[in-house]
Amino acid sequence: MIHFPKPIQNLIEQFCKLPGIGPKTAERLVFAFLKWPQKNKQEFADAFSEINGSIIHCEHCFNISEKNPCSICADKARDRAKICVVAEPHDLAAIENTDEFKGLYHVLGGVLEPLYGVTPDKLRINELLAKVQKNNISEIILAFNPDMEGEATMIYLKNILQPFKKIQITRLARGMPVGSDLEYTDEITLTNALKNRREI
Amino acid sequence: MIHFPKPIQNLIEQFCKLPGIGPKTAERLVFAFLKWPQKNKQEFADAFSEINGSIIHCEHCFNISEKNPCSICADKARDRAKICVVAEPHDLAAIENTDEFKGLYHVLGGVLEPLYGVTPDKLRINELLAKVQKNNISEIILAFNPDMEGEATMIYLKNILQPFKKIQITRLARGMPVGSDLEYTDEITLTNALKNRREI
Repeated sequence: MIHFPKPIQNLIEQFCKLPGIGPKTAERLVFAFLKWPQKNKQEFADAFSEINGSIIHCEHCFNISEKNPCSICADKARDRAKICVVAEPHDLAAIENTDEFKGLYHVLGGVLEPLYGVTPDKLRINELLAKVQKNNISEIILAFNPDMEGEATMIYLKNILQPFKKIQITRLARGMPVGSDLEYTDEITLTNALKNRREI
Repeated sequence: MIHFPKPIQNLIEQFCKLPGIGPKTAERLVFAFLKWPQKNKQEFADAFSEINGSIIHCEHCFNISEKNPCSICADKARDRAKICVVAEPHDLAAIENTDEFKGLYHVLGGVLEPLYGVTPDKLRINELLAKVQKNNISEIILAFNPDMEGEATMIYLKNILQPFKKIQITRLARGMPVGSDLEYTDEITLTNALKNRREI
């Protein structure tokens, strides 16, 4: 380990805390940063200070936002009978970007990962139940990544929401993504695509 | 492109300016950052503010430092007749880490890359010449990366320093790195290793 002046060493260590950034990458980033003109460096530092003060969580959907309630929860034109449950704010952003869903959201704050200490009480499941009990909900869409943790979380939520007989619980369709190749598609995806085949 | 609240969008764009960070990686980093406890976020922001205020360039060797002159230039025990010329501060740090060189340094600020606008006048070559003229220098070590730009810079500096007959101009040895494999060593490295073979 090479030793640099303390403020540089400190910034390198801070960068290392970010996912996928090792000491060497952190060093490269910090030295690239140091070569920037003072104005750009100040802009970068300001962006951090700004985000620290202005980003809060919407108390209805728990999405990150500048306002509370967020612009989606405050939008009267949205269908309040439909809730799309996602793990993280960036999942919400991805769905919002499709312009397909016009209901409300609920950000769970992660997926079940008991091995890493993420048990049901660490997620916003009680908040979801409270929302379901208070409001007249017709459909809950579980929009999680189709991986092991995502599937487990969906099964858990489905069981918990089962008592609300009137609510339709759905999940995102599984199948072949656009532009994919039959030859290279894994068996599970292909099995799902076959099971869920549709008339054209 | 997904749209996030403005401060988040802004921070993602700032991260994108760093080398090797694309929009997706920047997004991942920013969202990981947002999940940190407030204390850690503040520490990160503070590290940036700190570096902006406290890091200056030593006016003798142009290394980054908290003090001017830097601790190396201020060290009276160092051999002032030897100058090691490097491209960037992290090259200096790498050499300093070997504990092998006890002279002074000169950070050139880059290597010659005419295609990217880095011509000799963009580097601290005049400052090096001034140093050589003023002081009694016995050896100049050109410690650049053994790539095309590094080699070109070394040839350029050698020609410029040629008139100073008393100064010995040296470069780092080329050969096989420790732990390398004969079978997988490229021809140029192996040619150099053969040419520069030593008696054991």
